[in-house]
Amino acid sequence: MNFSSQLLEDAVNEFSKLPGVGQKTALRLVLHLLSKEQEEVSHFGNTLIRLKEEIKHCNICHNISDHQTCSICTSVKREKETICVVEDTRDVMAIENTNQFFGVYHVLGGLISPMDGVGPSDLFIDSLVQRVATRPVKEIILALSANMEGDTTLFYLHKRLKDFQIPITTIARGIAFGGELEYADEITLGRSIITRVPYEGSFIK
Amino acid sequence: MNFSSQLLEDAVNEFSKLPGVGQKTALRLVLHLLSKEQEEVSHFGNTLIRLKEEIKHCNICHNISDHQTCSICTSVKREKETICVVEDTRDVMAIENTNQFFGVYHVLGGLISPMDGVGPSDLFIDSLVQRVATRPVKEIILALSANMEGDTTLFYLHKRLKDFQIPITTIARGIAFGGELEYADEITLGRSIITRVPYEGSFIK
Repeated sequence: MNFSSQLLEDAVNEFSKLPGVGQKTALRLVLHLLSKEQEEVSHFGNTLIRLKEEIKHCNICHNISDHQTCSICTSVKREKETICVVEDTRDVMAIENTNQFFGVYHVLGGLISPMDGVGPSDLFIDSLVQRVATRPVKEIILALSANMEGDTTLFYLHKRLKDFQIPITTIARGIAFGGELEYADEITLGRSIITRVPYEGSFIK
Repeated sequence: MNFSSQLLEDAVNEFSKLPGVGQKTALRLVLHLLSKEQEEVSHFGNTLIRLKEEIKHCNICHNISDHQTCSICTSVKREKETICVVEDTRDVMAIENTNQFFGVYHVLGGLISPMDGVGPSDLFIDSLVQRVATRPVKEIILALSANMEGDTTLFYLHKRLKDFQIPITTIARGIAFGGELEYADEITLGRSIITRVPYEGSFIK
């Protein structure tokens, strides 16, 4: 593209570094910002700078936080003895949105993926083991994605945690609500038959 | 969404103000930035702040520029007597990319659109008339979008400029290269027959 201004080109280049944003989209976003008030654009810029400078990771669960320890880990209402292990902060938000979990989290910061060069030492696995070793824990829920990386991580975590003699569970796999049986893949449908549960009148309590 | 951090929420809100960016996409972009080095994120933020603070609009053609007068208006290679009138800076970039135009531009900053409350006084139309009145101009090319706003603006500009007795042209409408006749709409195909041109062996010179 032929830019009439170096400042414009710089801003477009910055935006097009973001995932899923090409040069044309970046230009559209930059021209949108240019049509806004200076104060608004400065606020955007300063928010990004503050985000990276001031954000912290909870020293217990490693979730993104404004403080040394996050609001979930400090809350007296949460059951500290149930730990839900997740990949990243998006999973914490997704589970929090369900309003069905009242324990605490442990954010791994990724999944074991030899293809991407991510090994167990790159994740917060040692700190999870230490957490389980030093505090009373009644259950560890492994809520990881159902793909190869998730399964590898699940297997590794189970190996590291099984000696503590604490119940280790994983979230249920099966047919989604609203899903039709005939369109479900064989593996999911097969697992959902093997791991069938007693009928309780209604699924939504 | 339940955010674990106010800083995170602020950044997601800023991104989701951009056109075409929802909360989920915004979160993905913010988490991507969080995974980058602090220097890189600060550079992004500062680029945006500088963009709005330092960018100028050319005092002749109103295109986005780093200087008082843009590089096209100051270039000795451009024919100053041929003015191409466009809606915004994206059109200038699109035409520049063709390498087929060697005149100068006039950026209106929008199109007349009574539905959106944009009238002739909101656009750089008076400065175009003044430009034509005070400098020698051989041709005015109106390169506007082929929609209702574009046609309204075309009509209004013609009314304002016709007394100068300068040839006023518009870009050709017709079947695009690679376009198939049977899929073309009737208006475009009809116009392309009415405005047919002599065959010159090859269209691409």
